This record gives sequence, structure tokens and C-alpha cells, in this order.
Amino acid sequence: MKRRAFLKAGGLAAAASALARPAIAQAAPELRWRLTSAFPKGLDTIFGAAQRFARHVSEATDGRFQIEPHAAGEIAPGLKALDAVADGKVECAQTPTYFHIDKEPVLAFGAGIPFGLNARHQHAWWHLGGGAEIVNEALRKFNAHAIAMGNSGTQMGGWFRKEIRSVEDLKGLKFRIGGMGGQVLAKLGVLPQQMAPGDVRAALERGTLDAAEFVGPYDDERLGLHMVASHYYCPGWWEGGAMLHLVVNLEKWQALPRSYQSVLNLAGEATNNWMLARYDADNPAALRRLVEGGAVVHSFPAPVIEACWTAANALYAEVAASNAAFGKALESHDAFRAQSLSYWRIADHPYDTMMLDLVLRRG
Amino acid sequence: MKRRAFLKAGGLAAAASALARPAIAQAAPELRWRLTSAFPKGLDTIFGAAQRFARHVSEATDGRFQIEPHAAGEIAPGLKALDAVADGKVECAQTPTYFHIDKEPVLAFGAGIPFGLNARHQHAWWHLGGGAEIVNEALRKFNAHAIAMGNSGTQMGGWFRKEIRSVEDLKGLKFRIGGMGGQVLAKLGVLPQQMAPGDVRAALERGTLDAAEFVGPYDDERLGLHMVASHYYCPGWWEGGAMLHLVVNLEKWQALPRSYQSVLNLAGEATNNWMLARYDADNPAALRRLVEGGAVVHSFPAPVIEACWTAANALYAEVAASNAAFGKALESHDAFRAQSLSYWRIADHPYDTMMLDLVLRRG
Repeated sequence: MKRRAFLKAGGLAAAASALARPAIAQAAPELRWRLTSAFPKGLDTIFGAAQRFARHVSEATDGRFQIEPHAAGEIAPGLKALDAVADGKVECAQTPTYFHIDKEPVLAFGAGIPFGLNARHQHAWWHLGGGAEIVNEALRKFNAHAIAMGNSGTQMGGWFRKEIRSVEDLKGLKFRIGGMGGQVLAKLGVLPQQMAPGDVRAALERGTLDAAEFVGPYDDERLGLHMVASHYYCPGWWEGGAMLHLVVNLEKWQALPRSYQSVLNLAGEATNNWMLARYDADNPAALRRLVEGGAVVHSFPAPVIEACWTAANALYAEVAASNAAFGKALESHDAFRAQSLSYWRIADHPYDTMMLDLVLRRG
Repeated sequence: MKRRAFLKAGGLAAAASALARPAIAQAAPELRWRLTSAFPKGLDTIFGAAQRFARHVSEATDGRFQIEPHAAGEIAPGLKALDAVADGKVECAQTPTYFHIDKEPVLAFGAGIPFGLNARHQHAWWHLGGGAEIVNEALRKFNAHAIAMGNSGTQMGGWFRKEIRSVEDLKGLKFRIGGMGGQVLAKLGVLPQQMAPGDVRAALERGTLDAAEFVGPYDDERLGLHMVASHYYCPGWWEGGAMLHLVVNLEKWQALPRSYQSVLNLAGEATNNWMLARYDADNPAALRRLVEGGAVVHSFPAPVIEACWTAANALYAEVAASNAAFGKALESHDAFRAQSLSYWRIADHPYDTMMLDLVLRRG
């Protein structure tokens, strides 16, 4: 009898547990997601951010919500990460939204347009200036929802085999550069090229490319571009504060318990900060090594910047003329940029200028 | 028999549930904490950040972990927030660590020292440069553990009844300023004053104070200082990127399940970003209103900056001579500052300079 009662009790306890499970499951279900990254494993800054994000989510949910990051090519090619999310092939992707501007130019504002916001202003615009709403509206046709998950800070302007002394020098230049930066430069005679990072060095060496841009010193060093093109330009005016995102399949996002949506948002913010901190901590030493290895740092000449600024504004006007959503996004972005800079000029920028002067020029 | 078995089963199920509870409770216990803030409710940027942090934690834990923010004075005075945590009177506090440098100068590095790191570099140093370890080591004697939970960006240099034209003009100046900024200025003859925010305007009006600094345009506007002192100085070289913290009682922190520690860390990062974004979004319009209302913006004259820089370095050398931990913290901080600026000079700062030039000076 004792044994039978015990068995029965076991059965009932199991039933009670089965009844209780739906409520618990709704609050904190066990989930396993796959993340496809637009980047290779070797980039421990960018792909490392996806891994860190996944660890945050696992830890905050006590292991109930697991996200497995896959490098570009494992599930989907780097440039097709958003498509994999749209199709429901994976639940989420790590990608700069500007990889998909050929289908929807508004997505340029997710990562940031040439001559756009710096990292801090991009973040403020995203959360408090309407940026998230604008980009997520544009992502609806891809059946996706984006949350902020990284930033590079201002990138470098890339590696050139010959110095750029004038606007003329841009004509016919075969430059590995994507996105809107490439479209702006095309207006000045540059021939923008798409190429996987691993192929760039050889192409530069044999002259298939005249120039190539990637990210900044820490990431660029790994490609070895300084071995074959010594002129390193700054700043990368097409990526003044490039924001990366976690792009989530919309139905998957909407089906998440609110607590999990919250954890993803919070983990995205933490990852955003970590990636930026990694670049801030690691770019200085990488730049020093590059310069010791022969890289010569140049600023783009003022007339080149001027011509690119004019070309960028012309491009934006053209796109806005045929895409009202782009026009509205541009208006929001430009107003936020002017407003942000009006205070940046008074506080943060003079502070930085003062510190550069005190610390670097006079020890 | 059936009924008896059922009763027994009920008993066993209850016992099983009781046995299971500790494990579940350990994973996600229901917790209610109180947070004492060093700031008043009226500051919707700073106190608003504590409220936002609490909401993040509640949402991410599905309401199981509740933190109730209390304004300065409700539980503990603003300057005693850390003491309330040390004593175990509350579980946690929102405070700049520099409020407590009279007891431990190393705590100055938590918020940032005069001529210290900007907001981004402070964050990178905190997470990847050893900052968190240095400050948390110093907090052990207060039985507390700090996590990052906000940043103001570069603050303004305060409101002055008369223009500051030379180092001489600092002599005898009754200036409402706290922390190490006050100690630096005291070396140049300033008489630093402590005063609750609500009393500052009247003191300036009747001349008990000659000058007062608070935060930046958005917060300063609420105190109405521009009505009684029209000279508004920039930048606030004593707070180039002031970081705020959540300071948690050490035993309470250590007793938290790891998932809750993770949620607090993530919520702190998100709150950090939100506070900075709020200032970036709201300071520009506030500054415009202040200027329309009669405020005149000045830069501190170069010889004044030079004298303050020299005085700051002299002060740091003195403190380090009698406090080895301060010396080590200073070494870490200064090395990170020099390193960060060496790249900032190449990428982010020229980008910002270019954008200020393109957007503000030529429309």
C-alpha cells in the first residue's frame, strides 16, 4: 500500500507539475535560438560581441534562454543575415542594417549615414530621437525588429596605395567600400567594390584594388592591409559612429514573454557598451603597431571632404525625392545632428580638445 | 482508499513542492529592495535614472525583483547614501562615489577626477582598464560593491556673477563646488562651499556665493541660477564624463543569485546609456533657452585652465604621497587617458571637429 500510494503520489505530483508548467513556461520558457552573424569568427570585437550578448542573455535568464551565435557562412552568407531572419530560417541575426540598403535605403540610418551622428548621438537618436521607430518601421517589410547591439565609434578612412592629394585623385579609384559611403564616392568617380575581407589584401597587392576600408586599427591589423598599402586615412567620414543591431524575426519577437524582450534589450545595451569599450581600449595600441610597421596616417584634404559632403547631400536629396520615408528619416536625423552638435560644441568637444592639448602636446 | 491515496498524494505533492522550492527560490527569489538616492525627485534625469533602473530590473525578472527608489532625505541624506548601504540600512544607493572622498580619495576615480576621462573613456576604463576593480577594492571598507549606472557627459563650469578674466579673479571666490574640483580650486584661492541645490539661487542673489556649479543646462535651468548670475562657463573640467553608480551592500550583492547579479549589471548599462542620451537630447534646447534668457557663455581663459591643470596635478601628487592606493589608481587612470587620447586624436575627435565645421558653421 505504501508503495502504491507513493507511485500514485508520484503520478499526481507529475500531473500537478504538468498543470503548473504552462504558467511557469509562459513566464520563463526554455528557448534555444540561433543567431547568424554578418561577420566571421576571427573578429573578436564584432563576433565577440554576439558571443557576449548570448552569454548575457543566458546568465540573466538562469540558462533558460540560450542563443547560439554562428559566424557568417555557417547558416547564411554575411550579406544575407537579414534575409535569413525574414524567412524565419533563424530567429535572429547580428548585422549592420546598411548591408540591406539596396532593398530599403532607410536602413542606412540604423548604422548611420555618411557625415552622420557620432556614436553617442546615434545612441541618443536611436532611443530618444525617433531612430528606433524609423528603422523598425522600415524593417517591417523584412518581418524583423532591431535592437541596438554595438558600435564601432568613428572608423578609419581606409588604406590607399597612393596618397589622395585632390578630388581628382578619386577618379577611377578602385576602392573596396560598401553602403552609402560607396555611393557618395561614386559621384566623384570612385569605382566602389564589394569584396570579402579575406580577399582584400591580395587584391590590393596585385592592384585589382587601389584602396580598401574595413573598420579601424584593431580589426584592420588582422587583415594585414598595411603590408600592401601604407597610406592610412582618417577619419572615416562614412562611419562616424556605426551602430550594429540584433535583428529579430518579428513573430519571434512578439511571441517572447515581456521579461525576455526586456533581457534582450538590456543585453543589447551592455553589448553596445562593451564593443565600444573594446575598440577604445584596443585601437590605440593597434594604431601604434601599424605606424611602427610603416603605416603613414593622413587626414583627407579639406577640398576632398568638402566635395564628399556636397556629393552626400546631393545623394540624400535624390533618394528622398523617390522615397518619402527616407526623406522623413533624413529630416529627423539632420535635425537631431544639428541640435546635438550645438551643445557638443560647448561642452564635450572643448573638453576633449583641452585634454588632447594638455595630455598629448605637453605631456 | 482512493480518497486516502489522494490525500496522501496531496501531502506528498506538497512535500515535493516544498523540497523543490529552495531550488526555484534560489534561482528566482522574490526580492524587495530599497534604493536611497543622493539626489532629489525633481531631477528627472538623475533620479529618473534610478526609477528607470528599477523598472528594468522588475521587467527583466517578471516582477520578482522589485527595487523602490527613494529620493535624498527620505531614508538618508544625499551625502550619506553610501553610509546607509554600509550600515545595511538599505540594500543599495544611487550616488556618485566622489561624495565620499573625504573618507577614501580613491573613490574620486569612480565618478572621474578633474581633467579625467571623458564619458566614453571612463566607461572603457571602468570595464576594461581596471577601473571597476580599483573602485570596488576601495569600496570594501564601506562594505559595498558598485556597478555603473549613469553618466552626465561633460558638465558645464557653472554660473558666475562676475567674469573670470585671470587666475587672480579666482582669489577669495565663494564657489559652490564639491569634490576634488573644489580642492583643486582651493589651491588657487577659491573658497569652495557645500550647499544643498535648493539654497543656491538665494545665496547667489544675496552674494553669500559668487559662483555655483551644478550639472549642465537641463538640470541647471531648474535651479534658476541664470536669473542671478549670467556668466556661464565651459567646459566643466572637473567633470569631463561623470559616472554615477549603483552601490550595493556587499553581503546583499554576494547573496544574490547569479542571474540577478547579471540583471543588475545589464540594467545598469542600459540606465547608463539612457541618462547620457537624455542629456544629449535635452541639454541643447535648455542651453538655447538659457541664452535667450540672458546667460552669456564663456570659455575659461587659457591661463586659468593652465593654472588649474598644474594645481590638479600637484594635488594628486600630494594625495598619492600618503595614499598608495590612490597613487596606483592615478597611474592606471593616467595611462588609460594618454592611450585613449592617442587614438581619439586620430578618429573621433577629427570627425567631431569636421562635423561641427560642416553642420554648424556653414549650415
